[in-house]
Amino acid sequence: MEECTPTLNTGLRGVIVASTKISQVDGKAGKLIYRGYLAKDLAEKTTFEEVIFLLLKERLPDRAELDEIRAELGRARQVAPETVAALRTQPRDARPMDILQAAVSLLATHDPDIDTYTREASVARGIRLIARFPTILCAWARLRQGLEPLAPLPELSHAANFLYMLTGSRPDEELIRFFDACLVLHAEHSFNASTFTARQVASTQAHMYAAVSAAVGSLSGPLHGGANERVMQMLLEIGTADKVEAYVERMLAEGRLIYGLGHAVYQVDDPRAHILAPMSRTMGERIGQTQWYEISRRLETAGKAAFKKRKGIDIFVNVDFYSASLYYAMGIPIDYFTPIFAVSRVAGWVAHILEEQFAEAAPKPQLYRPAARYVGEYCGPDECTLDAIDKRR
Amino acid sequence: MEECTPTLNTGLRGVIVASTKISQVDGKAGKLIYRGYLAKDLAEKTTFEEVIFLLLKERLPDRAELDEIRAELGRARQVAPETVAALRTQPRDARPMDILQAAVSLLATHDPDIDTYTREASVARGIRLIARFPTILCAWARLRQGLEPLAPLPELSHAANFLYMLTGSRPDEELIRFFDACLVLHAEHSFNASTFTARQVASTQAHMYAAVSAAVGSLSGPLHGGANERVMQMLLEIGTADKVEAYVERMLAEGRLIYGLGHAVYQVDDPRAHILAPMSRTMGERIGQTQWYEISRRLETAGKAAFKKRKGIDIFVNVDFYSASLYYAMGIPIDYFTPIFAVSRVAGWVAHILEEQFAEAAPKPQLYRPAARYVGEYCGPDECTLDAIDKRR
Repeated sequence: MEECTPTLNTGLRGVIVASTKISQVDGKAGKLIYRGYLAKDLAEKTTFEEVIFLLLKERLPDRAELDEIRAELGRARQVAPETVAALRTQPRDARPMDILQAAVSLLATHDPDIDTYTREASVARGIRLIARFPTILCAWARLRQGLEPLAPLPELSHAANFLYMLTGSRPDEELIRFFDACLVLHAEHSFNASTFTARQVASTQAHMYAAVSAAVGSLSGPLHGGANERVMQMLLEIGTADKVEAYVERMLAEGRLIYGLGHAVYQVDDPRAHILAPMSRTMGERIGQTQWYEISRRLETAGKAAFKKRKGIDIFVNVDFYSASLYYAMGIPIDYFTPIFAVSRVAGWVAHILEEQFAEAAPKPQLYRPAARYVGEYCGPDECTLDAIDKRR
Repeated sequence: MEECTPTLNTGLRGVIVASTKISQVDGKAGKLIYRGYLAKDLAEKTTFEEVIFLLLKERLPDRAELDEIRAELGRARQVAPETVAALRTQPRDARPMDILQAAVSLLATHDPDIDTYTREASVARGIRLIARFPTILCAWARLRQGLEPLAPLPELSHAANFLYMLTGSRPDEELIRFFDACLVLHAEHSFNASTFTARQVASTQAHMYAAVSAAVGSLSGPLHGGANERVMQMLLEIGTADKVEAYVERMLAEGRLIYGLGHAVYQVDDPRAHILAPMSRTMGERIGQTQWYEISRRLETAGKAAFKKRKGIDIFVNVDFYSASLYYAMGIPIDYFTPIFAVSRVAGWVAHILEEQFAEAAPKPQLYRPAARYVGEYCGPDECTLDAIDKRR
């Protein structure tokens, strides 16, 4: 007998819905592990390409394998002209996450073996899909400014190529290293909402594009990936570090959320936040705007103290808290913060879709089809007649 | 304490994840109820427009309200020229479900109050979205044949307008009545996979287009909405009624699925199948092709007998079993069977998104964030070091 948990209207919090070999989030210890490795160590010692290999192929690559997956990603970056043509038809105020969700669905048409439902074909498909996220998003970032999209540069790393296609200039080593670490840290987080969405769609045996597009939609929500944009809007609204305490008091008094504080799983600081914070400080210094980091720091202290005092609870920073000021200092448009999350997390989605559809070990995943408790009107055998419809209409 | 069910790798089958006032599926009795009314009675006595009102506004409309929602749907059918322009860029072999999933995401840009997160705005948004499903799908059906899309006719019912835009000719009363009944019967089915996907995306507070687009992806899977197309392919493969028994034997011997037989919830025949079967017979007679209905009938008998004999289990027909031959006899292209399902089910999705995001009663739904059991490599405090990464790489 497995653990047994009441689930009604709990958002399945704490309910174990599946077994997974992909990652472990130890909320008590504040540890995030990808296939046996601490994410923080991977961020320090590896690159996003190695993490893609690790997540999809279940181990770290050797040197030759790493060269191979880099080349494979580089070759796969270009999207079909028809996909770019579709983007060109869209109004300039279209949101990047809506564009991305749509474009991922359109990629399916250009998949040469869309009907091949095997693990091997799906791994290759996943790598192509991961490769194309930056291309779609950067094409849109340019098109909406009236600029032509830049062709991807296959010789650059995934992180470097993204920054190049977004900004039009080649990033320096420090920027690449920081951005690559961000990609590593956001790549995977077990059964978070968007990953659960991806797995659920995959459980119907829908193709990978359908599942990943759905996950993009899930990530766009303000309670999920959308939170990092809200954090930045909050920092801009606060404006200067001396206004932090008043802001915190006001939010708590009005019963409003402070984005970036609190997490469904962690009962300590999110381990990712500790790596992002110093990068945010460094990048802020580089651009001569240290205030966003400083506001964040003070907000962390004031927020924690206020929650303790007013509600008697310990609250902790999550991954969105320091990534906001970091991305801002990197010169990334605020409405690209969540898309960047997607550029990274798509690696985790693909790994989970593979596990959902091609798990080798029993018990295999099944189509997700939960039950619900009907609490609406009850239609008994006597009342629920055709006459009743006439009468009630 | 609520019911308590082990959930690991069960696809949440039988696990009660939420309370709902929208519908009840009584799998034992074979009853499907929408907000207190039997779906079969609604199919006989009402139209799809009334069911949309019922699902979204929680009661049947009176005459004036029905006129109003018909007019509202009629007015909302037109999609933005930019959305049609995006479809024009796509290769003719693009699948209708991929096109639909993409186009729904693109609709978000044209929503005049996309940021208004209220029940009232969302009901109006839902009605617009339901109105536009046929427009998108029929535009694509024409464009892929090199034909211009037809403008929707606001004076026609939802069912009649869909058939008109798809085929270019105005359907007769019987065809409209049958197709309308199909829309009523497929509109809602509690926490099926696509609806659960829609609710889950909505639980992140993502906008309705993100949630509905995700649901389209979920519906496309062969184990969910994609099944009705597989049923038709099976009927065509069998070809004549005398080959049914041999086909059933072969499928069972090879351990393969017979699409249209069996359901996650019903332990008797799907109540919808009983209404669809006679319509399939009548439509088959109309076009002088009764064989698809006859093959279906014989397959039902032979399939049930074979499952009983070989596996000792009772198996029952589901909604896809007779809808396949019915749609075929209506002249609908096979790859539009699942899209038609979406044209109907979007009403249920919208109702569930409204319930997920704006439920008034406590306990309110929460962000879906389940747990998983990590069964991969374990990274203990001593092994999981930076050196370990170097060594294992």
